[in-house]
Amino acid sequence: MAEPASTLAAGSVGTVETQYLDLPAPVRLDCGRDLRPIRVAYETYGALSPQRDNVILVCHALSGDAHAAGFAKTPPEEGTRDGFGADDRDGTAGKGLGWWDGMIGPGKAFDTDRFFVVSTNLLGGCRGTTGPSSIDPATGQPYGPDFPVITVADMVRTERAFLSALGIERLAAVTGGSLGGMQAFEWAILFPDQVDSVVAIASTHALQPQGVAWNAIAREAIMRDPAWQGGRYYGTGAAPDAGMGVARMVGHVTYLSGPALSDKFGRRLQFADDIRYTITEPEFQVESYLRHQADSFVKRFDANTYVYTSRALTYFDLARQYGGGSLARALDGVAARTLLIAFSSDWLYPPSASREISEALGALGKPVEFHVIEAPYGHDCFLLEEARQIPIIREFLGKHRLAGDRASG
Amino acid sequence: MAEPASTLAAGSVGTVETQYLDLPAPVRLDCGRDLRPIRVAYETYGALSPQRDNVILVCHALSGDAHAAGFAKTPPEEGTRDGFGADDRDGTAGKGLGWWDGMIGPGKAFDTDRFFVVSTNLLGGCRGTTGPSSIDPATGQPYGPDFPVITVADMVRTERAFLSALGIERLAAVTGGSLGGMQAFEWAILFPDQVDSVVAIASTHALQPQGVAWNAIAREAIMRDPAWQGGRYYGTGAAPDAGMGVARMVGHVTYLSGPALSDKFGRRLQFADDIRYTITEPEFQVESYLRHQADSFVKRFDANTYVYTSRALTYFDLARQYGGGSLARALDGVAARTLLIAFSSDWLYPPSASREISEALGALGKPVEFHVIEAPYGHDCFLLEEARQIPIIREFLGKHRLAGDRASG
Repeated sequence: MAEPASTLAAGSVGTVETQYLDLPAPVRLDCGRDLRPIRVAYETYGALSPQRDNVILVCHALSGDAHAAGFAKTPPEEGTRDGFGADDRDGTAGKGLGWWDGMIGPGKAFDTDRFFVVSTNLLGGCRGTTGPSSIDPATGQPYGPDFPVITVADMVRTERAFLSALGIERLAAVTGGSLGGMQAFEWAILFPDQVDSVVAIASTHALQPQGVAWNAIAREAIMRDPAWQGGRYYGTGAAPDAGMGVARMVGHVTYLSGPALSDKFGRRLQFADDIRYTITEPEFQVESYLRHQADSFVKRFDANTYVYTSRALTYFDLARQYGGGSLARALDGVAARTLLIAFSSDWLYPPSASREISEALGALGKPVEFHVIEAPYGHDCFLLEEARQIPIIREFLGKHRLAGDRASG
Repeated sequence: MAEPASTLAAGSVGTVETQYLDLPAPVRLDCGRDLRPIRVAYETYGALSPQRDNVILVCHALSGDAHAAGFAKTPPEEGTRDGFGADDRDGTAGKGLGWWDGMIGPGKAFDTDRFFVVSTNLLGGCRGTTGPSSIDPATGQPYGPDFPVITVADMVRTERAFLSALGIERLAAVTGGSLGGMQAFEWAILFPDQVDSVVAIASTHALQPQGVAWNAIAREAIMRDPAWQGGRYYGTGAAPDAGMGVARMVGHVTYLSGPALSDKFGRRLQFADDIRYTITEPEFQVESYLRHQADSFVKRFDANTYVYTSRALTYFDLARQYGGGSLARALDGVAARTLLIAFSSDWLYPPSASREISEALGALGKPVEFHVIEAPYGHDCFLLEEARQIPIIREFLGKHRLAGDRASG
């Protein structure tokens, strides 16, 4: 089922506004605590079918938010401290266009002409969903380090409770890249009867040890910044921007491949004529680029959310959580069809991890498709290589029959 | 010329004491400044031949020192702040045994039965050679950020002046791994008439852009630490230990391969039974290991030396410095025989960089040997895989005729 080249020029979902829902009941977390209240920021694209059988849940990665598609109704000014801090509930993303706009919309991979796409900000987030920067009802102050340590499963339980509150009890698909893919796997294991299919992109069943190390370094950079103040920096006029910047730089380099950095910047100098002999200023264009990435990130993201989400990422380990060390045992209860996409140059979430999932599902006799896309941009491919993912995902979802599909469909 | 298995059990150079020499004249630096005074910390192993034709200069990498072989006469207590700070001139290394002891000694790769091996702490260092923590004669205070920004060529000019002061005008070989190899290449280009051979291990003609990025991140981690105080932390009772720790963690992960981290730690938890739900404490063994690496490093190394040396590393670019962008042109004047060793799993100084040097030298008709050793430990192989380097280096140096060699040799 080849897609026409016009796929990429498909339509937009238009202007959207992030909405909020307060869960009616606490969520029991892996750590044993019941968390309440929980507010969930979300957006929806397309229309819910009368049979409520056409819902796709989109889960975002570490630094994302609910604004996955379309244009934000009130895009924040560039350079403002949007989305940061305890009292920010506007939930608008750092840019006007949703982070996966190329994938979600009429005629796109997640086709809003057929599907009702729901996107939430994850538990622990700083973009409208309850997280460490939210007010702790016990104190009237932001939680900070009193926020419970959460897991990917806790994120998924929250998403489940949120969808129930919307009256949705079944997902045609759950999808996401990176941490978003981890959430998709958790859905398929925790709620096998409610998930028809999983589309997991550039993801894994457990971060490899080097990835655990990178995440530990990023958290250390934040927590060693004196401005972190043990996590109680809200309202102090200070925030661990220095450490957050370093964390983002580390993350950024791990999201790209070495060859991609070479192609993009090479060893080009900031001042083409020669070096300036300075230790404090950028000399190479790649140095300047990393500083820019750091500076713009700290303006839109909360450090504690970074720490908590990074910790959840490293805990995630399907074999440990559900299989007594065996990935096959962990996946044994999965009922969904699974589509796995990985990228050849992704060294943070390498194709080998997706292959292990594919082989485990295949050996269990479960329907699974696995594609490795040859592309040079590393882990960021899941956001950049939309044109090559779209036909794969459309074909996979095209096999999914909806009550509303025409008989000829 | 196969080596007997007993090579590894070869002898030790014994107990050694770091010595110091004050250069008689200033060194003109690339930045245009004349630096004086310059003290150089050094050690020697073996005996200088009457013809002074058997000298091998050993150049160390980013965090090394002059104590390359044997046992330090006065090893510092473990855990003390050895080698740190402006007034520390004892120059002893953090451990009793030299950092390349497996390679230097009687019957070893750099055979002290034949060669007189000289090892210096590099310019800008914190282990006895003049660097940012030394006293600036203009102010009577430690230089800090007033220390001139230096290059690898400046390190080599200092080494040249130091050897002249010892009465040595010719090197049978100059060798080192990583930054040490960069110094060896600079020697062969700056002083072609004085270098008979180069042994460059796990090195490059220019750090790849990803390596530039890692180094930038490490420096940012240090300089963003408020305790860095613009580089003027000496005598304040504070030092950028937090940032240095993060820098070391980043470095450490780049020195190892992903598979090596997986083999060594996997995803093993600190507490075998399960996770503890903590954001501040290590949960994985690899996290605990990185913290330990960071903590022990900050006790023995000066942050400004790290910043300056890291900057010199990133500047180093033979094609830019000497070839108008052409590596071949840069190497055109080399007269030395060259031995290059790289390691298959080294992603920071990949074999491809050594191959480029090898091919450029070969195309110029210059004698060059290139070996890629298949080994899993990443860049650290140059310190760990001694057993497989020794026969290669011994055979290469065995072809070097010394006046003192027996006629039958």
